[in-house]
Amino acid sequence: MKAMEKKILNEGKVFPGNILKVGSFLNHQLDTDFLMEVGREIAELYNGERIDKIVTIETSGVAVAFAAAAIMHVPVVYAKKHKSSNLSSDLYSAIVHSFTHNRDYTVYISKEYLHEGERVLIVDDFLAVGNALNGLMDIVGQAKAEVVGMAVAIEKGFQGGGDSLRAKGIRVESMAIIDEMTDTDVIFRTQSK
Amino acid sequence: MKAMEKKILNEGKVFPGNILKVGSFLNHQLDTDFLMEVGREIAELYNGERIDKIVTIETSGVAVAFAAAAIMHVPVVYAKKHKSSNLSSDLYSAIVHSFTHNRDYTVYISKEYLHEGERVLIVDDFLAVGNALNGLMDIVGQAKAEVVGMAVAIEKGFQGGGDSLRAKGIRVESMAIIDEMTDTDVIFRTQSK
Repeated sequence: MKAMEKKILNEGKVFPGNILKVGSFLNHQLDTDFLMEVGREIAELYNGERIDKIVTIETSGVAVAFAAAAIMHVPVVYAKKHKSSNLSSDLYSAIVHSFTHNRDYTVYISKEYLHEGERVLIVDDFLAVGNALNGLMDIVGQAKAEVVGMAVAIEKGFQGGGDSLRAKGIRVESMAIIDEMTDTDVIFRTQSK
Repeated sequence: MKAMEKKILNEGKVFPGNILKVGSFLNHQLDTDFLMEVGREIAELYNGERIDKIVTIETSGVAVAFAAAAIMHVPVVYAKKHKSSNLSSDLYSAIVHSFTHNRDYTVYISKEYLHEGERVLIVDDFLAVGNALNGLMDIVGQAKAEVVGMAVAIEKGFQGGGDSLRAKGIRVESMAIIDEMTDTDVIFRTQSK
Protein backbone atom coordinates (compact mmCIF):
# COMPACT_ATOMS: atom_id res chain seq x y z
CA MET A 1 0.00 0.00 0.00
CA LYS A 2 1.85 3.04 -1.31
CA ALA A 3 -0.10 5.37 0.98
CA MET A 4 1.31 3.55 4.05
CA GLU A 5 4.88 3.77 2.76
CA LYS A 6 4.40 7.47 2.09
CA LYS A 7 2.92 8.01 5.54
CA ILE A 8 5.88 6.25 7.21
CA LEU A 9 8.36 8.31 5.20
CA ASN A 10 6.53 11.57 5.96
CA GLU A 11 5.62 11.06 9.60
CA GLY A 12 7.60 8.11 11.00
CA LYS A 13 10.61 8.75 13.22
CA VAL A 14 13.44 6.24 13.54
CA PHE A 15 15.17 5.85 16.91
CA PRO A 16 18.13 3.69 17.99
CA GLY A 17 17.27 0.02 18.52
CA ASN A 18 15.19 -0.25 15.36
CA ILE A 19 12.36 1.69 16.93
CA LEU A 20 9.97 3.31 14.49
CA LYS A 21 7.63 5.84 16.06
CA VAL A 22 4.37 6.34 14.23
CA GLY A 23 2.43 7.91 17.07
CA SER A 24 1.14 10.67 14.80
CA PHE A 25 -1.21 8.32 12.95
CA LEU A 26 -1.17 4.73 14.25
CA ASN A 27 -0.70 4.22 17.96
CA HIS A 28 -1.19 7.39 19.99
CA GLN A 29 -2.85 9.85 17.68
CA LEU A 30 -5.05 8.02 15.17
CA ASP A 31 -5.39 9.46 11.68
CA THR A 32 -8.95 8.29 11.28
CA ASP A 33 -9.41 8.98 7.57
CA PHE A 34 -6.11 7.30 6.76
CA LEU A 35 -6.89 4.28 8.94
CA MET A 36 -10.27 3.90 7.22
CA GLU A 37 -8.30 3.76 3.94
CA VAL A 38 -6.17 1.02 5.49
CA GLY A 39 -9.36 -0.77 6.51
CA ARG A 40 -10.65 -0.58 2.95
CA GLU A 41 -7.37 -1.97 1.63
CA ILE A 42 -7.50 -4.92 4.07
CA ALA A 43 -11.13 -5.61 3.13
CA GLU A 44 -10.22 -5.56 -0.55
CA LEU A 45 -7.25 -7.90 -0.09
CA TYR A 46 -9.49 -10.44 1.66
CA ASN A 47 -12.45 -9.89 -0.63
CA GLY A 48 -13.90 -13.28 -1.60
CA GLU A 49 -12.92 -14.94 1.69
CA ARG A 50 -15.60 -15.62 4.26
CA ILE A 51 -14.52 -13.85 7.43
CA ASP A 52 -16.70 -14.03 10.54
CA LYS A 53 -14.62 -12.03 12.95
CA ILE A 54 -11.47 -9.95 13.32
CA VAL A 55 -9.22 -10.73 16.28
CA THR A 56 -6.63 -8.25 17.54
CA ILE A 57 -4.79 -7.30 20.72
CA GLU A 58 -5.08 -4.22 22.87
CA THR A 59 -4.39 -1.38 22.59
CA SER A 60 -2.71 -0.44 19.38
CA GLY A 61 -4.33 -3.16 17.27
CA VAL A 62 -7.84 -1.94 18.02
CA ALA A 63 -8.05 1.04 15.63
CA VAL A 64 -6.76 -0.83 12.55
CA ALA A 65 -8.94 -3.83 13.35
CA PHE A 66 -11.97 -1.64 13.90
CA ALA A 67 -11.45 0.20 10.61
CA ALA A 68 -11.20 -3.05 8.63
CA ALA A 69 -14.17 -4.53 10.50
CA ALA A 70 -16.31 -1.44 9.83
CA ILE A 71 -15.77 -1.92 6.10
CA MET A 72 -16.30 -5.68 6.26
CA HIS A 73 -19.29 -5.47 8.67
CA VAL A 74 -17.91 -8.04 11.07
CA PRO A 75 -17.26 -7.80 14.82
CA VAL A 76 -13.83 -7.35 16.40
CA VAL A 77 -12.65 -9.24 19.46
CA TYR A 78 -9.56 -7.82 21.13
CA ALA A 79 -7.32 -9.84 23.40
CA LYS A 80 -6.81 -8.21 26.80
CA LYS A 81 -3.52 -7.89 28.61
CA HIS A 82 -5.05 -7.82 32.07
CA LYS A 83 -7.65 -9.85 33.87
CA SER A 84 -10.21 -7.45 35.27
CA SER A 85 -13.42 -7.81 37.16
CA ASN A 86 -15.18 -7.20 33.86
CA LEU A 87 -13.67 -10.29 32.28
CA SER A 88 -15.38 -13.64 32.78
CA SER A 89 -13.32 -16.46 34.28
CA ASP A 90 -13.77 -18.74 31.30
CA LEU A 91 -10.87 -17.62 29.13
CA TYR A 92 -8.51 -18.63 26.40
CA SER A 93 -5.00 -17.37 27.07
CA ALA A 94 -1.52 -17.30 25.59
CA ILE A 95 1.85 -16.04 26.77
CA VAL A 96 3.45 -13.39 24.59
CA HIS A 97 6.97 -12.04 24.87
CA SER A 98 7.27 -8.30 24.31
CA PHE A 99 10.62 -7.10 23.01
CA THR A 100 9.54 -3.48 23.43
CA HIS A 101 8.97 -3.98 27.14
CA ASN A 102 11.33 -6.95 27.55
CA ARG A 103 8.91 -9.14 29.47
CA ASP A 104 6.39 -11.93 29.07
CA TYR A 105 2.72 -11.18 29.48
CA THR A 106 -0.45 -13.19 29.20
CA VAL A 107 -3.25 -12.23 26.84
CA TYR A 108 -6.84 -13.30 27.31
CA ILE A 109 -9.95 -13.75 25.21
CA SER A 110 -13.25 -14.77 26.79
CA LYS A 111 -14.60 -18.10 25.51
CA GLU A 112 -17.91 -16.33 24.96
CA TYR A 113 -16.57 -14.44 21.94
CA LEU A 114 -14.65 -17.01 19.92
CA HIS A 115 -16.23 -20.22 18.68
CA GLU A 116 -15.42 -23.45 16.90
CA GLY A 117 -15.58 -23.14 13.13
CA GLU A 118 -15.45 -19.34 12.99
CA ARG A 119 -13.24 -17.95 10.26
CA VAL A 120 -10.95 -15.33 11.76
CA LEU A 121 -8.78 -12.58 10.33
CA ILE A 122 -6.00 -11.55 12.72
CA VAL A 123 -5.11 -7.84 12.55
CA ASP A 124 -2.44 -5.82 14.32
CA ASP A 125 -0.54 -2.56 13.96
CA PHE A 126 3.00 -4.00 13.90
CA LEU A 127 4.55 -7.34 12.95
CA ALA A 128 8.19 -7.75 14.01
CA VAL A 129 9.23 -11.18 15.31
CA GLY A 130 5.58 -12.18 15.37
CA ASN A 131 5.10 -12.99 19.06
CA ALA A 132 1.78 -11.20 19.44
CA LEU A 133 0.36 -12.71 16.24
CA ASN A 134 1.54 -16.20 17.23
CA GLY A 135 -0.17 -15.75 20.59
CA LEU A 136 -3.42 -14.74 18.91
CA MET A 137 -3.14 -17.67 16.49
CA ASP A 138 -2.66 -19.99 19.45
CA ILE A 139 -5.86 -18.64 21.05
CA VAL A 140 -7.83 -18.99 17.80
CA GLY A 141 -6.62 -22.60 17.68
CA GLN A 142 -7.71 -23.25 21.28
CA ALA A 143 -11.20 -22.14 20.24
CA LYS A 144 -11.04 -24.51 17.23
CA ALA A 145 -11.68 -21.51 15.02
CA GLU A 146 -9.79 -21.06 11.78
CA VAL A 147 -7.20 -18.39 10.86
CA VAL A 148 -8.04 -17.18 7.35
CA GLY A 149 -5.03 -14.89 7.34
CA MET A 150 -3.41 -11.88 8.92
CA ALA A 151 -3.23 -8.20 8.08
CA VAL A 152 -0.89 -5.70 9.67
CA ALA A 153 -0.23 -2.03 9.12
CA ILE A 154 3.58 -2.19 9.30
CA GLU A 155 5.81 -5.25 9.05
CA LYS A 156 9.43 -4.99 10.10
CA GLY A 157 10.56 -7.48 7.47
CA PHE A 158 14.13 -7.53 8.76
CA GLN A 159 12.94 -9.07 12.02
CA GLY A 160 11.67 -12.14 10.20
CA GLY A 161 8.31 -12.75 11.87
CA GLY A 162 6.24 -12.25 8.73
CA ASP A 163 8.31 -14.52 6.52
CA SER A 164 8.36 -17.20 9.19
CA LEU A 165 4.54 -17.13 9.28
CA ARG A 166 4.39 -17.21 5.45
CA ALA A 167 6.74 -20.21 5.46
CA LYS A 168 4.14 -22.01 7.57
CA GLY A 169 1.58 -21.34 4.84
CA ILE A 170 -0.21 -18.50 6.60
CA ARG A 171 -1.39 -15.62 4.47
CA VAL A 172 0.13 -12.40 5.83
CA GLU A 173 -0.77 -9.08 4.21
CA SER A 174 1.23 -6.06 5.32
CA MET A 175 0.40 -2.54 4.22
CA ALA A 176 4.14 -1.82 4.20
CA ILE A 177 7.13 -4.13 4.73
CA ILE A 178 10.31 -2.47 5.97
CA ASP A 179 13.38 -4.44 4.87
CA GLU A 180 15.92 -2.03 6.24
CA MET A 181 15.88 0.89 8.59
CA THR A 182 18.74 3.30 9.18
CA ASP A 183 18.94 6.65 10.95
CA THR A 184 18.39 8.39 7.67
CA ASP A 185 16.35 6.01 5.55
CA VAL A 186 13.58 3.42 5.51
CA ILE A 187 13.74 0.86 2.71
CA PHE A 188 10.58 -0.98 1.76
CA ARG A 189 10.16 -4.40 0.20
CA THR A 190 8.56 -4.18 -3.23
CA GLN A 191 4.98 -5.44 -3.15
CA SER A 192 2.47 -5.68 -5.99
CA LYS A 193 0.40 -2.74 -4.73
CA MET B 1 -30.29 6.75 22.05
CA LYS B 2 -32.95 4.06 22.15
CA ALA B 3 -30.70 1.59 20.30
CA MET B 4 -28.16 1.75 23.16
CA GLU B 5 -30.82 1.16 25.81
CA LYS B 6 -32.13 -1.81 23.83
CA LYS B 7 -28.62 -3.19 23.41
CA ILE B 8 -27.96 -2.95 27.16
CA LEU B 9 -31.28 -4.67 27.95
CA ASN B 10 -30.65 -7.42 25.39
CA GLU B 11 -26.96 -8.09 25.92
CA GLY B 12 -25.82 -6.45 29.17
CA LYS B 13 -25.31 -8.55 32.26
CA VAL B 14 -25.60 -7.12 35.76
CA PHE B 15 -23.28 -8.45 38.48
CA PRO B 16 -23.05 -7.64 42.21
CA GLY B 17 -21.30 -4.34 43.00
CA ASN B 18 -23.13 -2.41 40.27
CA ILE B 19 -21.04 -4.06 37.57
CA LEU B 20 -22.60 -4.03 34.11
CA LYS B 21 -20.86 -6.28 31.62
CA VAL B 22 -21.20 -5.25 28.02
CA GLY B 23 -18.32 -7.24 26.62
CA SER B 24 -20.43 -8.55 23.76
CA PHE B 25 -20.51 -5.18 22.01
CA LEU B 26 -18.52 -2.46 23.78
CA ASN B 27 -15.33 -3.49 25.53
CA HIS B 28 -14.13 -6.94 24.57
CA GLN B 29 -16.04 -7.92 21.49
CA LEU B 30 -16.88 -4.81 19.45
CA ASP B 31 -20.14 -4.72 17.52
CA THR B 32 -18.70 -2.64 14.72
CA ASP B 33 -21.93 -1.78 12.88
CA PHE B 34 -23.60 -0.79 16.14
CA LEU B 35 -20.62 1.31 17.25
CA MET B 36 -20.64 3.11 13.90
CA GLU B 37 -24.29 3.96 14.64
CA VAL B 38 -23.15 5.33 18.00
CA GLY B 39 -20.49 7.33 16.19
CA ARG B 40 -23.13 8.80 13.87
CA GLU B 41 -25.28 9.72 16.87
CA ILE B 42 -22.38 11.50 18.59
CA ALA B 43 -21.52 13.35 15.37
CA GLU B 44 -25.14 14.45 15.00
CA LEU B 45 -25.39 15.64 18.60
CA TYR B 46 -22.30 17.81 18.14
CA ASN B 47 -23.21 18.89 14.62
CA GLY B 48 -22.61 22.65 14.30
CA GLU B 49 -19.75 22.68 16.81
CA ARG B 50 -16.21 23.02 15.51
CA ILE B 51 -14.32 19.99 16.80
CA ASP B 52 -10.64 19.54 15.93
CA LYS B 53 -9.89 16.35 17.77
CA ILE B 54 -11.38 13.58 19.88
CA VAL B 55 -9.54 12.64 23.06
CA THR B 56 -10.16 9.31 24.80
CA ILE B 57 -8.37 6.83 27.07
CA GLU B 58 -7.11 3.34 26.32
CA THR B 59 -8.35 0.72 25.83
CA SER B 60 -12.09 0.64 25.92
CA GLY B 61 -12.60 4.26 24.85
CA VAL B 62 -10.77 3.77 21.56
CA ALA B 63 -13.49 2.03 19.55
CA VAL B 64 -16.27 4.52 20.40
CA ALA B 65 -13.93 7.46 19.85
CA PHE B 66 -12.72 6.03 16.55
CA ALA B 67 -16.27 5.47 15.30
CA ALA B 68 -17.31 9.05 16.09
CA ALA B 69 -14.06 10.42 14.61
CA ALA B 70 -14.52 8.41 11.41
CA ILE B 71 -17.89 10.09 10.89
CA MET B 72 -16.60 13.53 11.86
CA HIS B 73 -13.31 13.19 9.93
CA VAL B 74 -11.14 14.28 12.83
CA PRO B 75 -8.19 12.52 14.49
CA VAL B 76 -8.35 10.69 17.82
CA VAL B 77 -5.70 10.96 20.52
CA TYR B 78 -5.89 8.32 23.21
CA ALA B 79 -4.33 8.73 26.62
CA LYS B 80 -1.99 5.88 27.54
CA LYS B 81 -1.86 4.13 30.87
CA HIS B 82 1.79 3.16 30.60
CA LYS B 83 4.95 4.96 29.63
CA SER B 84 6.62 2.90 26.95
CA SER B 85 9.73 3.33 24.86
CA ASN B 86 7.41 4.42 22.07
CA LEU B 87 6.17 7.41 24.04
CA SER B 88 8.14 10.64 23.95
CA SER B 89 9.30 12.11 27.24
CA ASP B 90 7.44 15.36 26.75
CA LEU B 91 4.07 14.47 28.20
CA TYR B 92 0.94 15.80 29.79
CA SER B 93 -0.25 13.55 32.60
CA ALA B 94 -3.01 13.18 35.14
CA ILE B 95 -3.70 10.79 37.99
CA VAL B 96 -6.94 8.82 37.73
CA HIS B 97 -8.50 6.64 40.41
CA SER B 98 -10.04 3.44 39.10
CA PHE B 99 -12.87 2.02 41.18
CA THR B 100 -12.97 -1.11 39.03
CA HIS B 101 -9.34 -1.92 39.88
CA ASN B 102 -9.23 0.02 43.17
CA ARG B 103 -6.01 1.86 42.45
CA ASP B 104 -4.60 5.13 41.16
CA TYR B 105 -2.90 5.21 37.80
CA THR B 106 -1.33 7.90 35.69
CA VAL B 107 -2.45 8.60 32.14
CA TYR B 108 -0.27 10.28 29.55
CA ILE B 109 -0.69 12.22 26.34
CA SER B 110 2.30 13.36 24.34
CA LYS B 111 2.58 17.13 23.97
CA GLU B 112 3.04 16.56 20.25
CA TYR B 113 -0.61 15.67 19.78
CA LEU B 114 -2.56 18.24 21.77
CA HIS B 115 -2.19 21.96 21.20
CA GLU B 116 -3.29 25.30 22.53
CA GLY B 117 -6.60 26.46 21.09
CA GLU B 118 -7.72 23.08 19.76
CA ARG B 119 -11.37 22.31 20.33
CA VAL B 120 -11.66 18.86 21.83
CA LEU B 121 -14.49 16.39 22.26
CA ILE B 122 -13.80 13.88 25.06
CA VAL B 123 -15.24 10.42 24.42
CA ASP B 124 -15.30 7.28 26.56
CA ASP B 125 -17.20 4.03 26.90
CA PHE B 126 -18.39 4.48 30.51
CA LEU B 127 -19.05 7.41 32.80
CA ALA B 128 -19.55 6.52 36.47
CA VAL B 129 -17.99 8.84 39.07
CA GLY B 130 -16.15 10.62 36.26
CA ASN B 131 -12.54 10.10 37.29
CA ALA B 132 -11.26 9.18 33.83
CA LEU B 133 -13.11 12.06 32.16
CA ASN B 134 -11.88 14.52 34.79
CA GLY B 135 -8.32 13.30 34.18
CA LEU B 136 -8.70 13.83 30.44
CA MET B 137 -10.21 17.26 31.01
CA ASP B 138 -7.25 18.12 33.23
CA ILE B 139 -4.85 17.12 30.42
CA VAL B 140 -6.78 19.13 27.81
CA GLY B 141 -6.51 22.10 30.17
CA GLN B 142 -2.73 21.62 30.58
CA ALA B 143 -2.46 21.87 26.79
CA LYS B 144 -4.57 25.05 26.86
CA ALA B 145 -6.97 23.34 24.50
CA GLU B 146 -10.72 23.68 24.98
CA VAL B 147 -13.25 21.00 25.96
CA VAL B 148 -16.28 21.42 23.68
CA GLY B 149 -18.10 18.61 25.45
CA MET B 150 -18.14 14.93 26.26
CA ALA B 151 -19.85 11.90 24.79
CA VAL B 152 -20.05 8.51 26.43
CA ALA B 153 -21.70 5.27 25.47
CA ILE B 154 -23.10 4.42 28.91
CA GLU B 155 -23.50 6.69 31.91
CA LYS B 156 -24.15 5.18 35.32
CA GLY B 157 -26.32 8.09 36.40
CA PHE B 158 -26.69 6.79 39.93
CA GLN B 159 -22.93 7.28 40.50
CA GLY B 160 -23.25 11.01 39.93
CA GLY B 161 -20.23 11.77 37.75
CA GLY B 162 -22.24 12.97 34.77
CA ASP B 163 -24.48 15.30 36.75
CA SER B 164 -21.51 16.72 38.60
CA LEU B 165 -19.85 17.55 35.26
CA ARG B 166 -23.12 19.08 33.96
CA ALA B 167 -23.35 21.17 37.13
CA LYS B 168 -19.99 22.66 36.19
CA GLY B 169 -21.47 23.70 32.82
CA ILE B 170 -19.86 20.95 30.76
CA ARG B 171 -21.96 19.45 28.01
CA VAL B 172 -22.18 15.69 28.57
CA GLU B 173 -24.04 13.53 26.06
CA SER B 174 -24.65 9.92 27.05
CA MET B 175 -26.13 7.37 24.68
CA ALA B 176 -27.88 5.82 27.68
CA ILE B 177 -28.10 6.95 31.30
CA ILE B 178 -28.76 4.24 33.86
CA ASP B 179 -30.50 5.64 36.92
CA GLU B 180 -30.99 2.35 38.71
CA MET B 181 -29.63 -1.13 38.33
CA THR B 182 -30.92 -4.18 40.14
CA ASP B 183 -30.28 -7.90 39.64
CA THR B 184 -33.33 -8.10 37.46
CA ASP B 185 -33.75 -4.69 35.90
CA VAL B 186 -31.98 -1.68 34.42
CA ILE B 187 -33.86 1.61 34.62
CA PHE B 188 -32.91 4.39 32.22
CA ARG B 189 -33.27 8.12 32.65
CA THR B 190 -35.65 9.60 30.10
CA GLN B 191 -33.80 11.58 27.43
CA SER B 192 -35.17 13.43 24.45
CA LYS B 193 -33.97 10.82 21.93
